[in-house]
Amino acid sequence: WKGEFFPNISYIRYEGPTSRNPLAFKWYNAEEEILGKKMKDWLRFSVAFWHTFRGDGTDIFGSPTKRWPWDDGTDSLTTAFNRMRANFEFLQKLGVSFWCFHDRDIAPEGKTLKETNANLDAVVALAKRLQEGTNINPLWGTAQLFKHQRYMHGAATSPYVNIFAYGAAQVKKAMEVTHELGGQNFVFWGGREGYQTLLNTDMKKELENMAQFLKLASMYKKKLGFQGTLLLEPKPQEPTKHQYDWDVATTMGFLEKHGLSDQFKLNIECNHATLAGHSCTHELEMARIHGMFGSFDANTGDAQTGWDTDQFLVDIAEATLIMLTVIKNGGISPGGFNFDAKLRRESVDVEDLFIAHIAGMDTMARGLRNAARIVQDGALQSLVDRRYSSFDSPLGKAIKDGSIGFEELEQAALNSEDQVPPSGKQELAEMIFYSFVQ
Amino acid sequence: WKGEFFPNISYIRYEGPTSRNPLAFKWYNAEEEILGKKMKDWLRFSVAFWHTFRGDGTDIFGSPTKRWPWDDGTDSLTTAFNRMRANFEFLQKLGVSFWCFHDRDIAPEGKTLKETNANLDAVVALAKRLQEGTNINPLWGTAQLFKHQRYMHGAATSPYVNIFAYGAAQVKKAMEVTHELGGQNFVFWGGREGYQTLLNTDMKKELENMAQFLKLASMYKKKLGFQGTLLLEPKPQEPTKHQYDWDVATTMGFLEKHGLSDQFKLNIECNHATLAGHSCTHELEMARIHGMFGSFDANTGDAQTGWDTDQFLVDIAEATLIMLTVIKNGGISPGGFNFDAKLRRESVDVEDLFIAHIAGMDTMARGLRNAARIVQDGALQSLVDRRYSSFDSPLGKAIKDGSIGFEELEQAALNSEDQVPPSGKQELAEMIFYSFVQ
Amino acid sequence: WKGEFFPNISYIRYEGPTSRNPLAFKWYNAEEEILGKKMKDWLRFSVAFWHTFRGDGTDIFGSPTKRWPWDDGTDSLTTAFNRMRANFEFLQKLGVSFWCFHDRDIAPEGKTLKETNANLDAVVALAKRLQEGTNINPLWGTAQLFKHQRYMHGAATSPYVNIFAYGAAQVKKAMEVTHELGGQNFVFWGGREGYQTLLNTDMKKELENMAQFLKLASMYKKKLGFQGTLLLEPKPQEPTKHQYDWDVATTMGFLEKHGLSDQFKLNIECNHATLAGHSCTHELEMARIHGMFGSFDANTGDAQTGWDTDQFLVDIAEATLIMLTVIKNGGISPGGFNFDAKLRRESVDVEDLFIAHIAGMDTMARGLRNAARIVQDGALQSLVDRRYSSFDSPLGKAIKDGSIGFEELEQAALNSEDQVPPSGKQELAEMIFYSFVQ
Amino acid sequence: WKGEFFPNISYIRYEGPTSRNPLAFKWYNAEEEILGKKMKDWLRFSVAFWHTFRGDGTDIFGSPTKRWPWDDGTDSLTTAFNRMRANFEFLQKLGVSFWCFHDRDIAPEGKTLKETNANLDAVVALAKRLQEGTNINPLWGTAQLFKHQRYMHGAATSPYVNIFAYGAAQVKKAMEVTHELGGQNFVFWGGREGYQTLLNTDMKKELENMAQFLKLASMYKKKLGFQGTLLLEPKPQEPTKHQYDWDVATTMGFLEKHGLSDQFKLNIECNHATLAGHSCTHELEMARIHGMFGSFDANTGDAQTGWDTDQFLVDIAEATLIMLTVIKNGGISPGGFNFDAKLRRESVDVEDLFIAHIAGMDTMARGLRNAARIVQDGALQSLVDRRYSSFDSPLGKAIKDGSIGFEELEQAALNSEDQVPPSGKQELAEMIFYSFVQ
Repeated sequence: WKGEFFPNISYIRYEGPTSRNPLAFKWYNAEEEILGKKMKDWLRFSVAFWHTFRGDGTDIFGSPTKRWPWDDGTDSLTTAFNRMRANFEFLQKLGVSFWCFHDRDIAPEGKTLKETNANLDAVVALAKRLQEGTNINPLWGTAQLFKHQRYMHGAATSPYVNIFAYGAAQVKKAMEVTHELGGQNFVFWGGREGYQTLLNTDMKKELENMAQFLKLASMYKKKLGFQGTLLLEPKPQEPTKHQYDWDVATTMGFLEKHGLSDQFKLNIECNHATLAGHSCTHELEMARIHGMFGSFDANTGDAQTGWDTDQFLVDIAEATLIMLTVIKNGGISPGGFNFDAKLRRESVDVEDLFIAHIAGMDTMARGLRNAARIVQDGALQSLVDRRYSSFDSPLGKAIKDGSIGFEELEQAALNSEDQVPPSGKQELAEMIFYSFVQ
Repeated sequence: WKGEFFPNISYIRYEGPTSRNPLAFKWYNAEEEILGKKMKDWLRFSVAFWHTFRGDGTDIFGSPTKRWPWDDGTDSLTTAFNRMRANFEFLQKLGVSFWCFHDRDIAPEGKTLKETNANLDAVVALAKRLQEGTNINPLWGTAQLFKHQRYMHGAATSPYVNIFAYGAAQVKKAMEVTHELGGQNFVFWGGREGYQTLLNTDMKKELENMAQFLKLASMYKKKLGFQGTLLLEPKPQEPTKHQYDWDVATTMGFLEKHGLSDQFKLNIECNHATLAGHSCTHELEMARIHGMFGSFDANTGDAQTGWDTDQFLVDIAEATLIMLTVIKNGGISPGGFNFDAKLRRESVDVEDLFIAHIAGMDTMARGLRNAARIVQDGALQSLVDRRYSSFDSPLGKAIKDGSIGFEELEQAALNSEDQVPPSGKQELAEMIFYSFVQ
Repeated sequence: WKGEFFPNISYIRYEGPTSRNPLAFKWYNAEEEILGKKMKDWLRFSVAFWHTFRGDGTDIFGSPTKRWPWDDGTDSLTTAFNRMRANFEFLQKLGVSFWCFHDRDIAPEGKTLKETNANLDAVVALAKRLQEGTNINPLWGTAQLFKHQRYMHGAATSPYVNIFAYGAAQVKKAMEVTHELGGQNFVFWGGREGYQTLLNTDMKKELENMAQFLKLASMYKKKLGFQGTLLLEPKPQEPTKHQYDWDVATTMGFLEKHGLSDQFKLNIECNHATLAGHSCTHELEMARIHGMFGSFDANTGDAQTGWDTDQFLVDIAEATLIMLTVIKNGGISPGGFNFDAKLRRESVDVEDLFIAHIAGMDTMARGLRNAARIVQDGALQSLVDRRYSSFDSPLGKAIKDGSIGFEELEQAALNSEDQVPPSGKQELAEMIFYSFVQ
Repeated sequence: WKGEFFPNISYIRYEGPTSRNPLAFKWYNAEEEILGKKMKDWLRFSVAFWHTFRGDGTDIFGSPTKRWPWDDGTDSLTTAFNRMRANFEFLQKLGVSFWCFHDRDIAPEGKTLKETNANLDAVVALAKRLQEGTNINPLWGTAQLFKHQRYMHGAATSPYVNIFAYGAAQVKKAMEVTHELGGQNFVFWGGREGYQTLLNTDMKKELENMAQFLKLASMYKKKLGFQGTLLLEPKPQEPTKHQYDWDVATTMGFLEKHGLSDQFKLNIECNHATLAGHSCTHELEMARIHGMFGSFDANTGDAQTGWDTDQFLVDIAEATLIMLTVIKNGGISPGGFNFDAKLRRESVDVEDLFIAHIAGMDTMARGLRNAARIVQDGALQSLVDRRYSSFDSPLGKAIKDGSIGFEELEQAALNSEDQVPPSGKQELAEMIFYSFVQ
């Protein structure tokens, strides 16, 4: 390693909306206060180690396209160290304080689990050293339970008990190193926890095993003294035909069913909402109103195609909707905004990594600015509040407090004139919303 | 009324698979026993009053195409009586013992709720009389809470308290008449219980109101002495952009959250599964393994287009999958197979109504015969059982009974050799399954 | 008729972006010049008679929700006259010079075709009188060949020759009245020209009949002396399972195949692009580069649901993309921007009609302003031009002029070093694009 | 190489529908005559070299899962030879006479194009030797223009002229070796011929370059004396966001536009139909009625997920529809049925390769048997013919021969009574169709 991987790129600065410099922020001004909080505290950006430092442009029809200066294509520890150094240089030049990782992306798999754990420890030791004197920490860590052949039928939901055990061992260790690095959350994405066909699957057994796995994880978290939040990440499908954590509602229902609702929150990804047939806002709001919005994977999918494209989110209307939910939630700390997004396969310049992240950060910053103005204006919220005001009546209160039943309601209906409800004012709400998008 | 609406059609008989008579059953033989139960007891077919006697071929771009002999196009009680008579003639000629109805489809809306209820009583009285001496009963009744302008923002989730009350009154009465007619279940389909845009919606309030509405319904059921099952019918969208009872998992999660799981089951429709991005089997199995499979709406959607097509299900592979779940569930009584399916807009002959139902019944009968042979053969179930057998080991049992945690599992993983799991045998499972589809 | 249908609404004025008045333009300033042309000449807005004056809120699960002051719910000529008067009052208050119509929406169907034509003539005479002294004309007219029962199997593609003839008669007359009113284009939307199932369809015969129908239409246009453009409107499906004019490429291929490419252009609707699995820009660009972009139906679909929602387009990024194509096309006159969009079913105030159109017009105006700045800036176009510059080399020119073949190209490949191409710069292009969206 | 890769698997025999042996045919009986032609001559099965001998189970989230005995994971020529030997052993044991290949899948890429071509020649020489004395030939060959980094922006549509040249050189060579091996067709699948974003794309230039590339290919075919059919393979997307050969209609339109319709036919894949929003039958029929149905990629996609799953087609109703089109087309020779299908990632046994192909072959054989009975029965075709019979009238003939125009048609419409058309009989058509599916 020769000291620097991005020699031609300096620290990214805020230059304001009139700047045409691709390597500057135009809207993200970390220290600026919005609604009483600094932008950096609202947004808590994080870089995803796997996409940014391991992404090589491979797709299902194509070979790698990228040859990064920190990567010689081998699986050696030396290369793992270089990738980690690149990560820290990147974070510092970008002005981002968080990173997210899978255990197996930062350190190579050894011949045995013991050797693999030793590799992981070595890389974690380096990361810990690189963190020193910085304000950098993992936003979250996670265990990669989907790439290796052993997990081809799942980990927690594998039909094979030895794989369940192996997965448990891997989560235990990943949780330990996340704790060691001061990580603030721990994520479970069950990429193979689902089925390819029901014809060979006992779904009941698999769901029960998954619940048990999560219970054990939660117990071990307490034993370890890890204070971070445990997060499940919903996704409907891909690589499996069906993933058990289909969407926010499904995942919340599963947790509720198994008495785990107070031990987990959700890490929500826009791109996965698209795949599940939901708007991103739907997923965020569904989690928010149930107190389950834990963290955010800032990316987007393609509105037309049906696979996981993990693109950087650049749509400012979408970003405004997201930030409205975040503001209503009072922020999402200790969660944050992890760029679980990758360069397009054809974007092969080191510079592209910076441009993509800057655009992503600026987009969320524009969203925050827009959403703050919508909240301060108040017209949209008034429109909503007015719609529901009839439930503040005595009848409405009696319904809510359970003091009346169908018989009293029937009497109320028989005794009152039949009134049709007023306009829903959707077009007005859209006009107000878009007038703040800029 | 001149005694008969289908004078040219006689009682439909079973003629066996070699028959080419479109007005005969080739596979459905009501009294024949399959796996120890008569076909009619497995299948418990039901005709959907709305599609069959009210369907006029209107679509969003087109006017009515059908002029049925029992319908003069008016909303009079006389016409309502004729439709009901047509229903009974149809049921008897088809050899079907169940029918399903919405309150507002069988009787016209009056100027006041009182008058509307009186209209309903008059039609119900006729239906009761027509039932006498037959083995015919409603499979289920339901309240139509989506067609009238008053419900344009929802019923239980309307922002307007008077609409909530009106909806409650309507459900109360619909439950009463279902009970009066000996109906075996009562269904809730929340066609407008959802949102068109989140911009004007307080989703938290709406979900809480929906839960309260269902609680009151369940309480009133007990008061009324109605023994039938209360059923929610999941659907993801249409006519709303988002419907709260999105799919089986979402609906179960909602019930669980609000302590209603033991008071409701699900009425599952294949067509709605398609709209939610699921296979029909997925939805049925998800309900079955949680003990929530209550009844079935036997229809299908279009695999390519994205709206609710409510077609008769004629695919025998699909029917075989459905019946596999039904057999595993030990049947679905007191639920049944309701043909919530409509003729295509271009099918305007009275004969087409018979052909469509006969094809639907024969398809499910073929599915039952195929599924029974799969179950008797056992090879498919063996393939599944073998896959999960390692959980019968001491380690597997210790996981299930909660006697070991992540530390013991880590030890197990460190101590055992790293083994990759065997083939999932999906292609073999498909080969076995399709060899029984005929 | 008592003189005015919108007494509480006055002429809509431009008040600039800081205005909070919902009944004012904030971005659309008709007389303002952008890139050397007035906004009103770029945008040529049109109101869709059917959605705005006939839309009653009916959907496939719901009854009408709207009672407009110009509509007593009857099919009388008097009501038809009132609707037309409302149309002109609306156009004038909104400051829009174009309207679009179906024959059967503006005038009621009589007992015979002759009577129907007489009704149409009466309403057209009124419209002509109302046009006098204004700058108002139809952007286009069209024949409604999809609503009546007779067209349930199609018009030009009906299996029944008398329906083909009836459709021809209807198009002839609709073209005549469009001509009479000074209409600038004539549109064909083949809502029923497709199939519901291939099992009962002879697709070859249907496509040949469709081609013949269009040839006859083109011949009659010349005979009539109508100078307007004939436009086909692609749509993939709904109400049919498959519509023959699936998308832009399919429709162009059909025209090419039948030698009709120089006699027709396309009327493109964003919402239909969505249903076909395309971005709106894709469809517009595909038409533009082939010289086939004739007119635009300014609406949008829902990104998640799969049916035709015909919403007002309010997304400013989408509008910017659309206007980029329009600018590259040098405008789309004699085509225009027809708001083929409807209020949501729950929007029942007369005011909502104005709000929706104002938002739609402002959105396109913002798109125009943004697109103009992108064009003036030039950075995005430069990025594209640079990518293709190697085709300006001698080798590139030889390929284009056909002077070399595979053998010379193989020699070139064998003789040159293997070079991988540079970055596609997608993220940079997105950054540039969004920096102009405001 | 030790003589045999599948020592435990013997020649697959026909054992009839009652056999439970997974390694036997139950419906495919090669020499049996159906409608006057042997099954093997209707079906002309082909094995896809890439999926069967190079498929290692990698997916976008997962590492390889399969370790085949003929593959040591290296890119050596020795391994390439072994894979080819495995191919021939497999073909012979399976009783299949055709195989399909990409140039780069059968032979490794060298350091230069020259070296690469030499590698290809070496493997082709072996294949030719292995073919000797057998009835085995390539159904088609193709050039792999999508995997290597150089093609990341496309080949024929790359913005870089040197890549265009390289692609041309590769197609030239691939065509030569296909010819050398007695291949009967040559396929173009433009996996990267499309765009990822229109923001950086000049679609007009790309489409023109693609047309020119195909013209040169067609010219070179003549020069070479290759008698096989040139085939384009439509696919809408993946890996690109948009592929130019979107579907059958788009591809035919493109060929028509550029005067290439008589020089190319289409290779149609069911799975790609699904991705384009079409039924498989739609695509096949669209090609058939235009005389463009060249060959068939026998696979299927998933009805719910949105990416290319390339599964073996096992649905017998689908197979029956496919074979109906094939019979109407009089067969598809010199095309055939190529199993462009892969084992699921979790299917890791050598035996699974046989089971999957046997199931695929049996499924198509069942489809052929069913379709033949439908054709012999004639009821379905009669239903269709009756629907269109009114076009055999004098009026219908006058329309077809162009002797009348809109004025005469208007007279016909004015003079005839208004008749609504008869029932479309879709449910009857479905009943007939499914009664033959077994």
